[in-house]
Amino acid sequence: MQIQLVINILGFLLIFLAGSMLLPIPFSIYYGDGDYLYFLISAFITFVIGLISFKLTRRERDVRAREGFAIVTLGWTSFSIFGCLPFIFSGTIPGVTDAFFETMSGFTTTGATILNDIEQLPHGLLFWRSLTHWMGGMGIIVLSLAILPLLGVGGMQLFKAEVPGPVPDKLTPRVTETAKILWGVYVLISALETILLMFGGMNLFEALCHTFGTMATGGFSTRNASIGYYDNAYIQYVIIFFMLVAGTNFSLHFRFLKREIGAYHRNKEFLFFIGLVAGATILIGIDTMIGHFDQWETALRNTLFQVVSILTTTGYGTADYEQWSFSSQYVLFLLMFIGGCAGSTGGGMKVIRLYILIQFVRMEVKRLLHPSAVIPVRVGTHVIPREIVTHVIGFLALMVGLFITGVFLMTLLGLDLVSALGAVAASLGNIGPGLGSVGPTDNYAHIPVAGKWILTFFMLAGRLEIYTVLILFAPSFWKK
Amino acid sequence: MQIQLVINILGFLLIFLAGSMLLPIPFSIYYGDGDYLYFLISAFITFVIGLISFKLTRRERDVRAREGFAIVTLGWTSFSIFGCLPFIFSGTIPGVTDAFFETMSGFTTTGATILNDIEQLPHGLLFWRSLTHWMGGMGIIVLSLAILPLLGVGGMQLFKAEVPGPVPDKLTPRVTETAKILWGVYVLISALETILLMFGGMNLFEALCHTFGTMATGGFSTRNASIGYYDNAYIQYVIIFFMLVAGTNFSLHFRFLKREIGAYHRNKEFLFFIGLVAGATILIGIDTMIGHFDQWETALRNTLFQVVSILTTTGYGTADYEQWSFSSQYVLFLLMFIGGCAGSTGGGMKVIRLYILIQFVRMEVKRLLHPSAVIPVRVGTHVIPREIVTHVIGFLALMVGLFITGVFLMTLLGLDLVSALGAVAASLGNIGPGLGSVGPTDNYAHIPVAGKWILTFFMLAGRLEIYTVLILFAPSFWKK
Repeated sequence: MQIQLVINILGFLLIFLAGSMLLPIPFSIYYGDGDYLYFLISAFITFVIGLISFKLTRRERDVRAREGFAIVTLGWTSFSIFGCLPFIFSGTIPGVTDAFFETMSGFTTTGATILNDIEQLPHGLLFWRSLTHWMGGMGIIVLSLAILPLLGVGGMQLFKAEVPGPVPDKLTPRVTETAKILWGVYVLISALETILLMFGGMNLFEALCHTFGTMATGGFSTRNASIGYYDNAYIQYVIIFFMLVAGTNFSLHFRFLKREIGAYHRNKEFLFFIGLVAGATILIGIDTMIGHFDQWETALRNTLFQVVSILTTTGYGTADYEQWSFSSQYVLFLLMFIGGCAGSTGGGMKVIRLYILIQFVRMEVKRLLHPSAVIPVRVGTHVIPREIVTHVIGFLALMVGLFITGVFLMTLLGLDLVSALGAVAASLGNIGPGLGSVGPTDNYAHIPVAGKWILTFFMLAGRLEIYTVLILFAPSFWKK
Repeated sequence: MQIQLVINILGFLLIFLAGSMLLPIPFSIYYGDGDYLYFLISAFITFVIGLISFKLTRRERDVRAREGFAIVTLGWTSFSIFGCLPFIFSGTIPGVTDAFFETMSGFTTTGATILNDIEQLPHGLLFWRSLTHWMGGMGIIVLSLAILPLLGVGGMQLFKAEVPGPVPDKLTPRVTETAKILWGVYVLISALETILLMFGGMNLFEALCHTFGTMATGGFSTRNASIGYYDNAYIQYVIIFFMLVAGTNFSLHFRFLKREIGAYHRNKEFLFFIGLVAGATILIGIDTMIGHFDQWETALRNTLFQVVSILTTTGYGTADYEQWSFSSQYVLFLLMFIGGCAGSTGGGMKVIRLYILIQFVRMEVKRLLHPSAVIPVRVGTHVIPREIVTHVIGFLALMVGLFITGVFLMTLLGLDLVSALGAVAASLGNIGPGLGSVGPTDNYAHIPVAGKWILTFFMLAGRLEIYTVLILFAPSFWKK
């Protein structure tokens, strides 16, 4: 492990973070909330520490897999440590635990909040809160499409072969090129959503904040009632559409923008993702149409919104789904584990892994009927090598193991079973709202301090494909 | 598929069932409850139908895998259909759904009941109810140690290699020989438990019924308060010991009786099983010692009893664990999925599969650190072939899929999330009592009719290693 190299790159990233801390200042000044000073102080501290780390260390060699893992995990962690400074300095979130929780929830695009009254926050801090989402989403796209495939994490190398898009062969220098292309797509779509939301009546501030929350599949809103505040079908449909866009592999968007007709409908994962949305909407829609909404359009819109919001791991809400039937709540709970497509900003296990798992089980059942037949696992016409299937399953088993452990720890802290299941699923899947005492109308303020730190860890592990984080705990990882 | 052959063997089995229906008659006459007539009628009907099926069909060829699957699943089903006749004829359980549920719960050694007042039943019927357990347990030992390994179900062929005990190479005729040896062990241990329970003050009737429930890891009691009725530390320890014995691979008992010293402590699965008991007892014991019992011995005994009862999938109770902390309830809930050792009468996924899964995940994490190393999955010094690991994982994935589907169906019928999770886990794992409205002080009477049939299916699927049942739904299975 080249510690110097890791610190060097982390320093560089902190300088970038310091720069981003200046972005909320125009809004702070425009709305006259007077919170711009806290951003200046935070940016200064972050910049100085970043610069020192950068200047006092050297890059002797190229980044290998080990350094890659360390940079990613420590990068997200240090962004959350320095990113929470404006909350602490301004006193809007006085406790370190709460401020760190909120910021990690932002950068991991989870969207779980400890704030009881979001609307009380000054505009600058609200903007910063949403911006952490957007930056987190940016990081994830590069991570999942450019870095992780090279590190061979949990079968993600599959997508290198599957998506012949802008995927590089070496970590440097082509990773920078790939990143630029993908960020271009990300910025372009974000601009489009902002404009469309402003057409619906949102001002620039609100439109930007909600675009950040949507495109990163984050879920932080500027309103206590989330998207339910905007009793406006147009705005809700726009957000549904862009949540779906954000939950889709960004390589597909890139190829579509390159005028490759059929980029979407030739992609098995995308089709399965849309199938999941349709299936869950029907399952829940029957319940909501009969029992909860007077008009079929309202029922369909609210159902579709909630399904897309949870499946893409965004976590925005328009209705209190805990009022719906147990079966509807259960379907939403299951969706929490699935998440978006690979190469999207969505969290969870990813649609492609579920797809491969289902194909694997089908293959195993077939084998019993035809013991001598060799039946491969396929995605479309593409045969998935056994190694990759094994890695995907290993990843899922580890995720289940982590989930089970997390729920145990939360029950140990006194949470009832439903709340514990909801809190861990919503953190590990980077969704935000869960079930029970952390449901869509509640928040995470009441969770004990230890529980908040545990959930922060789960957000990070879930966001960084688990292995990336866990591997740092292996002693042999740090050896020369 | 040789339908004639299947019907022929099922006919033979029904004749055996008819004979077993005469066993409760002595108790019926001794206690003067007057219910012996119903057993005579039921036995007569079962015998006639069995005889017709046996006489009108022929065995043309040997039993192949396909016929094996069909005989096992249809055998358990037909036993439950005919086995519920005494309940229906006597009017003690008037509804067909309830009578079938109770009998399937018996033969699958689940122990879930729809009876609100067990103690009201005549002695003959109580005896019959417990006897279904004992016969089910007998069937399972032969199935898991002699039949399934040959059919290659879900990695169970592993145990053929792992356990060089009385395991045959061909289904017939050596399966009969193996069966006789294992049944001898089963009868011997059962006799021992009966005697020890009588030393504790139980009469022959109660001792036999509770032995049947213990040895089959079933859980039907003759008392509403289950083992809690016997406020007697000796009896409770005896039952704890024999639940452990019943949850252990019967091949090990056979080898131990053959004076093979160290049969137990050289078996990795058994050691891991004991480790699970110890670990769960400690985790829960801290809670029960502090919060629920005055004396440490009472706390330890009640905790150990509940841990062993649920891990071995017996389902007997001495205390209402829903009064314990959420973390304790959650640990018990997790134990529901694990179950006993392979080759025991316990249900669940089996300890060996969990062990292999953990080894597999460890191997996958190691691989990430040392990408070029070839690290096999081991049980002790024994290297598990990749094929077997794949089958084990396929089995577990299918089990999870079935569990998820079952919970959805139960929530659709109006059960809350905790009750649905509990009911499906307790049925699929063949435990009996679950959580929520089907907890240890409740029963399954209130479950809607459709729900009872669904749970019956889950008991059967869980008991017969899932594949055995599901494969019957594949159209190609029935082709010539």
